[in-house]
Amino acid sequence: MKSNHPFWQIIHTIPNFPKEGIDFYDITPLLYNHVSELIDALLAELSPSLLEQIDCFAVTEARGFVIGSLLSGRTGKPLMLIRKKGKLPPPVFSESYGLEYGEDTLEIKADLPISNVLLVDDVLATGGTLKASKILCQKAGHTVLGALVLLDLTKLHGDIGMPSYHVMSA
Amino acid sequence: MKSNHPFWQIIHTIPNFPKEGIDFYDITPLLYNHVSELIDALLAELSPSLLEQIDCFAVTEARGFVIGSLLSGRTGKPLMLIRKKGKLPPPVFSESYGLEYGEDTLEIKADLPISNVLLVDDVLATGGTLKASKILCQKAGHTVLGALVLLDLTKLHGDIGMPSYHVMSA
Repeated sequence: MKSNHPFWQIIHTIPNFPKEGIDFYDITPLLYNHVSELIDALLAELSPSLLEQIDCFAVTEARGFVIGSLLSGRTGKPLMLIRKKGKLPPPVFSESYGLEYGEDTLEIKADLPISNVLLVDDVLATGGTLKASKILCQKAGHTVLGALVLLDLTKLHGDIGMPSYHVMSA
Repeated sequence: MKSNHPFWQIIHTIPNFPKEGIDFYDITPLLYNHVSELIDALLAELSPSLLEQIDCFAVTEARGFVIGSLLSGRTGKPLMLIRKKGKLPPPVFSESYGLEYGEDTLEIKADLPISNVLLVDDVLATGGTLKASKILCQKAGHTVLGALVLLDLTKLHGDIGMPSYHVMSA
């Protein structure tokens, strides 16, 4: 069941995109029409003490780049990029994880200062991407304080093994 | 020749990545250590009258998402995403453009309000991505005010057919 959040009037749900059986949540109207309210809503999920602990936002390609960079732009906190394989120059750490079909590999730079990171993405579905991102951060020596997403769908999928914060759920 | 900008001490230049003959500019240390200064430097390239004219930042996947969302987070101006083919639900406009080998296709939503947009990306090299992004915006009815990038390499490649602004050049 969808949470009762006003953003549901703005985000479009497109059934069977990009393939049959998948609901796609189109956040482009939210980014266009209500970007400041989006940032307000994301930051409102973080307690002042948690926000103070965060050294940087670790953001996952590609829509996580958008959500996390909005937060970084507002707060001035640093960004750490988690990219698809082959997009970051060495030295990197890599982590592969299963997708519905096949697998994907994410990478993080191995030469950034040890940090307390908050993972940021747009949607939390099965949690595969965020769990791989957490492992990558830990390989690089960072402490993962949790994950912040706009939209949490884990009622379908269960625990992701770290504290998580969300603006909306379905 | 490189411009004499202090960010050159922070950005790493990696020769022959991701392939032989290509110089890769690694902005991850800049995003981690100097993100607020980066935003300051980007905004300093825009005159107050240009900034006032901009309705939104049109940002190209994937590193353009980072640079543009930092600007949106700081200024509160809206974001418009330009994505790789198949990532945005219909209705979209599409534009293909040549790469060194083969071609790529970008898409933009066709249902966003008509706007004065500033294109934003990290690096301007051949200009292929920004030129395709400009055509896409025009197909969707928007007016392109120009392009803002962190790093301009067009001394190698020539004019991109619109006003462009950059923090650094090489």
